[in-house]
Amino acid sequence: MRIALDMDGVLADVYASYIQLHERDFGIRKSLESIEGLEEWEGFPNAPTYVRTPGFFENLQVMPDAIEHVKNLNEQHEVFIVSAAMEFPLSLNEKLSWMNQHFPFITWKQIVFCGSKKIIHADLLIDDHFKNLDDFQGRTMLFHQPHNARKDSGRHIRVHSWEQISQLL
Amino acid sequence: MRIALDMDGVLADVYASYIQLHERDFGIRKSLESIEGLEEWEGFPNAPTYVRTPGFFENLQVMPDAIEHVKNLNEQHEVFIVSAAMEFPLSLNEKLSWMNQHFPFITWKQIVFCGSKKIIHADLLIDDHFKNLDDFQGRTMLFHQPHNARKDSGRHIRVHSWEQISQLL
Repeated sequence: MRIALDMDGVLADVYASYIQLHERDFGIRKSLESIEGLEEWEGFPNAPTYVRTPGFFENLQVMPDAIEHVKNLNEQHEVFIVSAAMEFPLSLNEKLSWMNQHFPFITWKQIVFCGSKKIIHADLLIDDHFKNLDDFQGRTMLFHQPHNARKDSGRHIRVHSWEQISQLL
Repeated sequence: MRIALDMDGVLADVYASYIQLHERDFGIRKSLESIEGLEEWEGFPNAPTYVRTPGFFENLQVMPDAIEHVKNLNEQHEVFIVSAAMEFPLSLNEKLSWMNQHFPFITWKQIVFCGSKKIIHADLLIDDHFKNLDDFQGRTMLFHQPHNARKDSGRHIRVHSWEQISQLL
């Protein structure tokens, strides 16, 4: 099976960085619960600046348990990492470097940076954005994140952890 | 129709740069005819160095007539630019910058950088490499370049110019 995995919000823990940077800037440590249902920039007004700051994407934490589970997936399936990175040109090299650092078993042949994911042909897409999943031809899993917490199109399986993904496959 | 266009050897004239750099390094101006059927590094021994030199991809000439014909295609079809750029991380930002400079009507949403093109879902792929075309599910056109001149899998329509592509569509 060919599996396409999103980076931000699936492999990379973007919210962990938002929380840290927001606390630095405003002195308030927000909980994930307090921003459920809000868009990223609603929960963190400086988010548009953070994602355009050099080093942001290179310094993201890895989502809990992602390395171990992606490694297993990669041994059993055809895995591609598909990131909508084109919007932030600065992020291209940082994302590639981040992948090499944390997921060295994923080769450059398995990485795709795009603007739109509608051109991606795979059997399963795991992503945290409805805009990527809704038009996808194939199985879909919605990785739970605060920005998608209060929405449900009923068309995607919502998953809360990498362990849950492995159990479902 | 969704059309995927390769960059190097289709939109960008890589050989024009090879010829220029080879003349600079060896004092000999090679003709395209003299290297027909040779791999790029056979015709130009320093090619592996050239493509890893900062500025190489940003300074490539545009393939004759490409801008005008891609502009027309883009008005009638769903066009994506799909470049196997992942092998040369330095090239990512240069390729994006090159596209913005020469094809400003192509938005970031239409650009894909990948390692392998087998994950690309489109109706037509125009590319100069058999390795990209052979596994593609859909119509294919082989853009004539010296390295593919003496091979023919019989599976792809060989095209010699952007004018010819437009006539065929």
